[in-house]
Amino acid sequence: MVKRYLETLRKEEALNRVLEAVAPLDAEEKLPAETAVGRITSRLVTARISSPPFTCSAMDGYAVDFEKTLAADLYNPVSLTPGTDTFRVNTGDPIPGPANAVIMIEDIEEKQGQILIRRPVSLWQHVRMIGEDVVQGDVLLPTNHTVRVFDVGLLIGAGVREVYVRKKPRLLIIPTGHELIDIGREPIEAVVHGRLIDFNSYTLIAMAKEIGFDPEKGEIVKDKSSLLSTLNKASNEYDVIIINAGSSAGTEDFTASAIQDLGTLIFHGVAMMPGKPTLFGMVRGRPVFGIPGYPVSTVLAFKTFLEPLHEKLCRQVRPVKNINCTTPYKLASSIGVEEVLRVNLIERGGTYYAYPLPRGASLFSSLAKADALVRIPPNVEGYPEGERVSCELLREESELSGRLHIIGSHDLSLDVLRDIIKQGAPGMDLISTHVGSQSGIIAMQKGIVDLATTHILDEREKVYNIPVIKRYLGTKPVALINIVRRIQGLVVSKGNPKGIKGVADLVRKDIRFVNRQVGSGTRVLLDSLLEEHNVDRELIHGYDREEATHTAVGVLVSSGVADVGVAIYPIARLFDTDFIPLVEEEYDLLVTREFMGDPRFARLMDAVTSSEFARRIREFGGYNTEQTGKTRYVNG
Amino acid sequence: MVKRYLETLRKEEALNRVLEAVAPLDAEEKLPAETAVGRITSRLVTARISSPPFTCSAMDGYAVDFEKTLAADLYNPVSLTPGTDTFRVNTGDPIPGPANAVIMIEDIEEKQGQILIRRPVSLWQHVRMIGEDVVQGDVLLPTNHTVRVFDVGLLIGAGVREVYVRKKPRLLIIPTGHELIDIGREPIEAVVHGRLIDFNSYTLIAMAKEIGFDPEKGEIVKDKSSLLSTLNKASNEYDVIIINAGSSAGTEDFTASAIQDLGTLIFHGVAMMPGKPTLFGMVRGRPVFGIPGYPVSTVLAFKTFLEPLHEKLCRQVRPVKNINCTTPYKLASSIGVEEVLRVNLIERGGTYYAYPLPRGASLFSSLAKADALVRIPPNVEGYPEGERVSCELLREESELSGRLHIIGSHDLSLDVLRDIIKQGAPGMDLISTHVGSQSGIIAMQKGIVDLATTHILDEREKVYNIPVIKRYLGTKPVALINIVRRIQGLVVSKGNPKGIKGVADLVRKDIRFVNRQVGSGTRVLLDSLLEEHNVDRELIHGYDREEATHTAVGVLVSSGVADVGVAIYPIARLFDTDFIPLVEEEYDLLVTREFMGDPRFARLMDAVTSSEFARRIREFGGYNTEQTGKTRYVNG
Repeated sequence: MVKRYLETLRKEEALNRVLEAVAPLDAEEKLPAETAVGRITSRLVTARISSPPFTCSAMDGYAVDFEKTLAADLYNPVSLTPGTDTFRVNTGDPIPGPANAVIMIEDIEEKQGQILIRRPVSLWQHVRMIGEDVVQGDVLLPTNHTVRVFDVGLLIGAGVREVYVRKKPRLLIIPTGHELIDIGREPIEAVVHGRLIDFNSYTLIAMAKEIGFDPEKGEIVKDKSSLLSTLNKASNEYDVIIINAGSSAGTEDFTASAIQDLGTLIFHGVAMMPGKPTLFGMVRGRPVFGIPGYPVSTVLAFKTFLEPLHEKLCRQVRPVKNINCTTPYKLASSIGVEEVLRVNLIERGGTYYAYPLPRGASLFSSLAKADALVRIPPNVEGYPEGERVSCELLREESELSGRLHIIGSHDLSLDVLRDIIKQGAPGMDLISTHVGSQSGIIAMQKGIVDLATTHILDEREKVYNIPVIKRYLGTKPVALINIVRRIQGLVVSKGNPKGIKGVADLVRKDIRFVNRQVGSGTRVLLDSLLEEHNVDRELIHGYDREEATHTAVGVLVSSGVADVGVAIYPIARLFDTDFIPLVEEEYDLLVTREFMGDPRFARLMDAVTSSEFARRIREFGGYNTEQTGKTRYVNG
Repeated sequence: MVKRYLETLRKEEALNRVLEAVAPLDAEEKLPAETAVGRITSRLVTARISSPPFTCSAMDGYAVDFEKTLAADLYNPVSLTPGTDTFRVNTGDPIPGPANAVIMIEDIEEKQGQILIRRPVSLWQHVRMIGEDVVQGDVLLPTNHTVRVFDVGLLIGAGVREVYVRKKPRLLIIPTGHELIDIGREPIEAVVHGRLIDFNSYTLIAMAKEIGFDPEKGEIVKDKSSLLSTLNKASNEYDVIIINAGSSAGTEDFTASAIQDLGTLIFHGVAMMPGKPTLFGMVRGRPVFGIPGYPVSTVLAFKTFLEPLHEKLCRQVRPVKNINCTTPYKLASSIGVEEVLRVNLIERGGTYYAYPLPRGASLFSSLAKADALVRIPPNVEGYPEGERVSCELLREESELSGRLHIIGSHDLSLDVLRDIIKQGAPGMDLISTHVGSQSGIIAMQKGIVDLATTHILDEREKVYNIPVIKRYLGTKPVALINIVRRIQGLVVSKGNPKGIKGVADLVRKDIRFVNRQVGSGTRVLLDSLLEEHNVDRELIHGYDREEATHTAVGVLVSSGVADVGVAIYPIARLFDTDFIPLVEEEYDLLVTREFMGDPRFARLMDAVTSSEFARRIREFGGYNTEQTGKTRYVNG
C-alpha cells in the first residue's frame, strides 16, 4: 500500500502552522493617491495643507463687514459701495481683508452702481473658515487602513499627492501535469483525447487578484526535475508559491518530495473536504503550497489558507459576509472532516433556505452557481432538516432578493426563460435547482418553495401532473401553468447501429442503458412504459446507472458509454444522435397562489408568454408551444 | 434679484427625466475571459467543449472492467495483469477502452508484476464521465450577467477563451473654475491664497471607475468660451459628460447657458440637500450634467444621477447594501427637500445607532469617515429620537463589528490610540464622535454608548469628571480611567502682539476671542475661570463664535481671524502660536463595567498603557502620562 498523506491535520491546526511560519511583509511603495483605492497604508497619513487653505466665501455674493449691515431693514435698505464697503465674491474666493460675512447674490439689489441690502447679516455668515474641513497636520488615514474611494478626495484636498502603501505580495502559480493545455497559448483544437484544459490557474489568478496578491502564472511543469528548477528559481523571486495539483500520491505527485528536496515540508493532508490533499512547506523562507487539482478543492484550499495568509502578510483584515440560513432537508456529512457545501440561498418568508448544489470536487460549475458556502464541522454527521446555520456569502445579500427560484424538473426552456428575463430586467435572475419533478412537489408541500416544474404522468389516469398534485398538495392553493409540451423518446447512437425500436429492446443483452434518477418525471414515464409493455426492469443492463439530467443521458449515449436512454428531442439534436419518439408530455409550472401576486411572477409570465420564448423554443425542435402560458388547473 | 434656478424638481422626477432621455448603449467588446471579471455580458455564453471533455479517472489508481473484480474478497484476492486486465491511470487520464471503473492506488497490492485486489468494485467507480460538469452547448452565462471570479474558471474550462461584454461608457469630467489647481500637474506650492485644489475631479474619477465608467479628466476650464468648445468637442467623443461646479448662479456659473447654447437644458435645481444646484441637459444626444462644487454635493449628485444612469446605459443592476439603524437623538431636517446625512453606525445590544457627522456640504472629511447615508424624505421634518430608519451602507457590515466607538471630548491622543490599535490589529478601528464631554456622558446615561471621553471640572469641588459622573450616572456601573493629563491655556498670536496675560484680558475691546461649544469641557473650564476672575462674558468680543475642536481654535488664531482662544498646548505647537498655560486637567475615559469584559476594551487598554503611546504623546508636549491607564473611580 502507498501512504497517501504524511498525516491529516485539523484545518485550524494546519492554518496555525501556516500563519506561524510566515511574517508580515514590510515592503512598501509610494502611489499617486488616486491609484491607491483598495491598497493598505503602511504609514500614518497627515494633511499637508488645511482645507480650505484660506478663509473663503461659501456662496456667490458680496463680502461685507457685518457691522455695516446692522441698520438695514425691509423699508430702509443700507447702500454699500462696491470696492470699499463690499466686494463681489464667488464661492471659494478668499474673503477680502475688512470683510467677515457674505451676502448671497439673491439677497441684494443693484441700483446706480450701489449695492442695496434690506436685511442685516451675522458675523461669519456664508464664510468657510480656513481648516474648516481639514487642518494641516490632521491625521487623514491611520496605518493599516484600506484606502476607500472617498479617501482619494480627502487626500488630494489636503495636498497629499502620494501615499505609502504595502506592496502586493508576489504570488507564483505553478501548474503541473503532463495532460494540461493552456488555452491562452494553444488553440482550443489542442484539446484532444487525453488532454485537459488548465483552468485552475486562471481561477487562482482571478481569486488572488481579487484579494490583493500580485499573481503570475508560470509555465506548465510536466516532471519533477522541471518542478525543482522552477521552484528553486521562484523561491528567490516570489513571496508565495502555489503548486497546483500533484499534491496527492499518484506517480506524478512530486510536489511533496520537491519541497522536501529544497526546504521543509510542514504538513501534508488536512481534514477538510474538498481540499484534503493540501500540503505546505517552506523553501528559503518562502511559503509553498501544494494544492489539489480538483477545481473545487483548488478553490477551497486557496480560500482556507491563502486568504488568511494574505491578511497576515499585508496586515489587513478583509470583511467577511456571513448570513444565517436554514437547511431545507437533512444535509449529510462525514465525521472527522470539515465538509464544505456549495449552496443556493432561496428566501421565503424571511428565511434563507440553503439548497446544496452537487458536491463532487470536480463539479466547478456548482461553485460558479453558488450563493454561499456552508461549512459542516468535523464533529457532526451533517445537519438535520430545519437546522439554522451560518454560511459565507459569495454574493451581496441584495442580489438574492430579486430572483426567481424554480425547483424540480429540468428543461432547456428554463435557460431560455432566464436569458429573456435578464435581458428585460438585469437585476433579476432565475435560479433552478434540478431535483426532479417529485422532489419539487414535496418541497412545495413543505411550504419552502413557491415555484416548481413538473412532468409526472399518472399511470392510471394517463394525465400529466394534475393527479399527482391533488395527491400531494390536497387543498393547498396552487395553480398549474403549461410551459411547453415536449417529445420524450429514446436517444440512441447515431445511425441506430443496434437497431433499437422501442422500450421492449432495452432488456437485450447487447444493450447498455442509462437511466434517470428516482423521482424524475422521465423515470416515472419510463417505468410506466415498461409496465405497459410488460418489460422486466431487472433485466435492463444499466437500469441502476442514474443520471440527473437529460443532457447527461445525451452525453453518455453520444460518447458511446451507453447505447440508449430516455430524453427529450433537443438532446438528440444537440448531440447528433438518433431519436425514437415515445410520447408528448406536459412540462408545467406549479406556483403557489400567494406568489402569483408577486411582481417577479409577472416577469416570469411575461417571459413565458413572449413571442421570443416561443420562437427560441421552437428552434430546438421537439417542442409544442400551443398551450404555453395556459392555466391547466387551479387547486384549493 | 437673480433667479437662482429654473425650477426645483423632486429628486425622483429629476431622475426620471434623466433616465427617459438616454437609451442603453449597445457597444460591446470581446475580452479574454480572465479580464472580464466585473464586466457585463452582452450575449449569452455557451460551452464550446464539455468538461471533462472525455471520460477520465477521478483518482490515481488502476482502471479495470468492474466485472473482472466481482469474485474478489479479503482472503481470495483477484490477480489482474497490467496492460491487459488493468491500466495504471492518474487523476484526469482517459479511461482505456475496456475499463469502466478505477481502483484507488491505496487499495491494490503489487506482487510479482501482478495487481492484487481484495474487494470487488462497482461500475463507474472513481470515473468522471464526459460532460459531468459542463456539457458542450450548456448555457454558462446569460445576457446581462456581471462576470464573477468563479465564472473565469467556468468559461476557460468549457473552452471559452473570450467573451463579449458591454463597453464601459466613456465619461468626461470637466472641472471649471478660475481658482482651481490640479496638483497632479502643478506642485503643491502652487496652492496659494485664492487658489484651491481641484479634488472633486479625483473623487469623481474614483467613484466613476468603481461603478464601471471609463472616466477621463479634462483640462480645467476657466471661462464660458472654453467650456463651449470643450463641450462641443466632448459631445462627439464621450457617452456622458459632467461639468463640475458652475451649476449655480454666480458670475462664473455658465454651465446652464453653455448647455442651452449647444443643446437642451432639461432641468436646473433638485429638491435635495446637499446637491440642490444640479442641472441636466442633452447635447447632441449625449447626457450632460452640471453638478455643484461643494465636495459633498458633488458626491451626492453623482450617486443620485450617475449611478442609476450607468445601470441604464449598461443594463446592469448593482447590489445595494441597506441596513436598519436607530436614531440616538432627534435628527432635524428641512421640509421640502430630501436631506442626506452622513452617519457613523455604532452597534450596541444588536442595534445600530446612527450618529450624524457634521452636515456642511463642504465638509468632505465627514464623507470619508461615514459608514452610511441616511436619507430624510422631503415630507418630514426630521426623525425623532429612537426612530428606526433604513440607511445605505458605505462599508461592509462586518467592518462595523470590530470597532471601538468613543463619543465625547476630542483629544489628539485618540488619533494616536487609533493608529496604535490598527497597527496591532488591522481588523479593528477606533471611531470617535466629537460632541463634547457632556453629550458623551448623556449618551452613556441613555445607555447607547460604552465609551466616552471627558474633562469636566466641577467648579465647586475643583475635581475633574468624578462629580459630574456621580451627578449624571448615579449608580450606573461605570469606571473612569485616566488617558492623559494635559495643559489647557490661552492660544494667542505668535509673539503675543496684543500683550494678553490671562482671562481678564478677554473683555478688552481690541481682542477678538474664539470660543468652544456649550457642553465641551473646555467651555466649562473657561466659564469657571471667568467666574473665578469676575469677568463678564457678555463683554467678550466673539464669545458667541463657537468651534467644536481644539484645532479649529488653533486655525483661527494662527490665521489672524481671532486673537485668542482656549486650547491644549500641542495646538500652539502645531500652529506655531504663543501659549499661556492655565490649568492641568484630567482627560479621562469613561467605560461601562459591562464593556470592560469585551476583548476590544482589552485592546484599547493595551494601547493606552503601551510605551509607544506614552512616547508619542510626550512628543506633542504639554501632556503628562504619569496617571495614564490608572483607574480614577468606579461607580455602582
